[in-house]
Amino acid sequence: LNFLFIFFYFFYLFFCLCELMSSFLLFLYSFFLFVYFEVVSLQIPSNTPNFVIFFADDVGYGDFGFTGHPTILTPNIDYLAAQGTRFTQLYTSAPVCSPSRAGLLTGRLPIRSGIYTSHNSYPYDQFRVFYPFSTGSLPPSEITLPQLLKEHGYSTAMMGKWHLGHYNNSLPLHRGFDEWFGIPYSHDEGCPPGYQMPCETSQHIYTPTPLYDGDTIIQQPVNLDTLIQRMTDRAISFINESSLDGKPFFLYVAYPEAHVPLFASSAFLGQSLRGLYGDAMSEMDNSVGTIYSYLVQSGLLSSTYVFFSSDNGPWTSMGIDGGSAGLFRGQKGETWEGGMRVPGILVGPSVSPFGIVTDIASQMDVFVTFLDLAGISLPTDRPIDGVSWTNVLFQSGRIPRHCYFLYRDSLLMAARCGAYKAHYITQCGYCENPPVSHSPPILYNIQVDPSESFPLNTTEPQYQTILHIIDEAVHEHQSGMEAGISQLDSYDLKVEPCCDLADRCVCGPW
Amino acid sequence: LNFLFIFFYFFYLFFCLCELMSSFLLFLYSFFLFVYFEVVSLQIPSNTPNFVIFFADDVGYGDFGFTGHPTILTPNIDYLAAQGTRFTQLYTSAPVCSPSRAGLLTGRLPIRSGIYTSHNSYPYDQFRVFYPFSTGSLPPSEITLPQLLKEHGYSTAMMGKWHLGHYNNSLPLHRGFDEWFGIPYSHDEGCPPGYQMPCETSQHIYTPTPLYDGDTIIQQPVNLDTLIQRMTDRAISFINESSLDGKPFFLYVAYPEAHVPLFASSAFLGQSLRGLYGDAMSEMDNSVGTIYSYLVQSGLLSSTYVFFSSDNGPWTSMGIDGGSAGLFRGQKGETWEGGMRVPGILVGPSVSPFGIVTDIASQMDVFVTFLDLAGISLPTDRPIDGVSWTNVLFQSGRIPRHCYFLYRDSLLMAARCGAYKAHYITQCGYCENPPVSHSPPILYNIQVDPSESFPLNTTEPQYQTILHIIDEAVHEHQSGMEAGISQLDSYDLKVEPCCDLADRCVCGPW
Repeated sequence: LNFLFIFFYFFYLFFCLCELMSSFLLFLYSFFLFVYFEVVSLQIPSNTPNFVIFFADDVGYGDFGFTGHPTILTPNIDYLAAQGTRFTQLYTSAPVCSPSRAGLLTGRLPIRSGIYTSHNSYPYDQFRVFYPFSTGSLPPSEITLPQLLKEHGYSTAMMGKWHLGHYNNSLPLHRGFDEWFGIPYSHDEGCPPGYQMPCETSQHIYTPTPLYDGDTIIQQPVNLDTLIQRMTDRAISFINESSLDGKPFFLYVAYPEAHVPLFASSAFLGQSLRGLYGDAMSEMDNSVGTIYSYLVQSGLLSSTYVFFSSDNGPWTSMGIDGGSAGLFRGQKGETWEGGMRVPGILVGPSVSPFGIVTDIASQMDVFVTFLDLAGISLPTDRPIDGVSWTNVLFQSGRIPRHCYFLYRDSLLMAARCGAYKAHYITQCGYCENPPVSHSPPILYNIQVDPSESFPLNTTEPQYQTILHIIDEAVHEHQSGMEAGISQLDSYDLKVEPCCDLADRCVCGPW
Repeated sequence: LNFLFIFFYFFYLFFCLCELMSSFLLFLYSFFLFVYFEVVSLQIPSNTPNFVIFFADDVGYGDFGFTGHPTILTPNIDYLAAQGTRFTQLYTSAPVCSPSRAGLLTGRLPIRSGIYTSHNSYPYDQFRVFYPFSTGSLPPSEITLPQLLKEHGYSTAMMGKWHLGHYNNSLPLHRGFDEWFGIPYSHDEGCPPGYQMPCETSQHIYTPTPLYDGDTIIQQPVNLDTLIQRMTDRAISFINESSLDGKPFFLYVAYPEAHVPLFASSAFLGQSLRGLYGDAMSEMDNSVGTIYSYLVQSGLLSSTYVFFSSDNGPWTSMGIDGGSAGLFRGQKGETWEGGMRVPGILVGPSVSPFGIVTDIASQMDVFVTFLDLAGISLPTDRPIDGVSWTNVLFQSGRIPRHCYFLYRDSLLMAARCGAYKAHYITQCGYCENPPVSHSPPILYNIQVDPSESFPLNTTEPQYQTILHIIDEAVHEHQSGMEAGISQLDSYDLKVEPCCDLADRCVCGPW
């Protein structure tokens, strides 16, 4: 019995010791959790969330796994779509690069900031975006999203393609970004070596596409083989530094994919079933996944909103080098749905996973929504065309918009109110044909007929009723519209970026 | 001190009691878990899994949330897609209903079973499917999937549209099903009351579409308003009964959605942004979700494989009543991708969630794969055109198929080998134009150019090399092909289903 007693006594002591140890470990764990939350989380209070925008270039609505492409695999972007809410009726601000990006960053229609060409004769009619010889820019009087966030204590950085002017202090550092690593315009405007797409016009030979770090050209021509990896690394460094500094951040990653000429680094080249276009998409998808994973691992995702979209529809006239608008009609440069309807994903705190928003949304809404989430007031001295998504995201409300106006340059081409879209003018994106006016306008129920295949019969009473509503909305919209001075009309060959005039504007290291 | 001692003593007793109770509850829980697994799980050993096929009608590749449709919401089918593996290069056996369903259920090209018309002149050229007056059927010599499964102890049931003949003992009960509740052919073949689509030809007025339970007409015309709910209820009863009987089951749910004339019951009517087409899709999606949820709740999902697909591409010539092939060209009735490329989802034990298979797959593979999973040998006395997916699903292998042959009736129209597809003959699905032979054939890289927009240049050496490979494969395929006797050529007005000749073939209850 004594032996048994001693045995159980020691057993009991051992048990207590274990209990004690596990309690101690629990205490330690709680302590570290406490310290972690105090140090890491409280640095970034929930009323100043972080923001990330991933912006693709010329990628169509149909070019993703989650929008049904059979051979382009985008597992990381699909994962984003599953983790967040998809916007299935999201429009860009314009059907081409420069004005679209102006709309995204200012929340205003590009006609207001002057990002349009006012000419319709050669060579100006081609100049719907900024070129190496453009002297215009996003006017300094415009207020950008990073500028407002920076004023409220945010770190702001941009990686990738700017395309809002480069002359006369108009690069990203002068429009609200603390940091910029990227190219000033599309990489077909210049001659990246080793790519076969013609990038010289008969009128002009561009200087090679430069790579900037801030205001300084660090490489010319840019080495596209390593560009995405470097953009990704820089993005992660920026997130990490902002986090260490205890500052909320705004990161804008504007990928050059999948604008022509297509490219992919060796790890992705020839790996996709969709050819070079698919390789480029894979490289972008991988970069998105790498940055997103970093947000997850570092615990920052719980205080970060991530938006993914594309600047305009696919450039299908480029043949197999162009993307797919899926079931939509038209392409880049056009105000058919295929030119301006793009995929949109928002992931973030309290944003529903597997969510779907079918209201009419605009990329200009991102400006308003992000400021709303950050508790920053909108500028009150100018019209803002974006509206906030917070009601639809967090309060089962609607996006407060009844009509949307689709411009090409300063021409209002089409208008959508509710389910219906009226085309007043149409024009092919990449051809010699002049704009075609439609009188009476072509009317579609875009929700029932997203492919714009079955116009409403103009003799039906319904046609007149709906057109009247849209006409009224257009009239009201146009009566209050003040167009900015065109920024795309002026040019000067001497302003082309050149790091070393003596050496054909070529400099390294590569 | 005494007081303290007593206090701690009672505290200790209370603690022990709690421990005892929680131990007892744990024991009870374990006991019930044990009983549950013994009773429920062991009844269905893993080597006889259950199978469910959901089959949509005329629904296009682009008509689902998970394939990018902006206004058709299919949350339940999207959930299936997320839970399972998607097949992005999946073909039907034929571009129209009857032969497609023959391929699915027999694993053989419909030319072998005779599900084609051999005429190309009116009225026979229209008769590419079974009609109320057809005297042919899926020949009894064909071996169906439910027939083989039934021979191996399975309960087998079908809900919905058969479309493989109804005369002379050819309904589902005579082709391997224990139970059938549904319609014998498409519901436009007959005149469901209240639907506006013309379903009478000038040549003939069909009897009203009947509803069968087994071999008996229980309602004529079928009440489409309640059909989906009744199919869903019957499907769940069948699953429940099979499970209680301790038998594995095969359930084939062949929805009439979204074949014209479109319909939806009152709970779904007018609820979707995509009009009546979207309402119909919502009702189907809801039914799929209800049946799938039942599998989850009853614990049967862990031993059940679920396949979802559509019988052919969308009937786009029906205007807004037709669906969308997404980025694919063509429609129902055609051998362009849009006519035969459909979405495919497989969910089941050990099937990867979020999985994607991009190999060339066929709906005929379902026959082979399900038999493979059930450990049942394939028939050896006849050619089988399907191949098993088990390698690609469970062993990171490939689908063992290099070429796929696309027929319209008994004509081999196109062939695909690897990434390339050669069109030898094309024909519009719903028009008066005769077939067009292409010499040289039109060749596409379907993986790079899924929209069949950019044919390979016939003067390029690559064209000759690839065409030679496809030609050889076609030659070999055709040399071994034995066509069955046409089942669609013969007809007799007297065989139209009629429950009560005296009362215009109308009988209830409704």
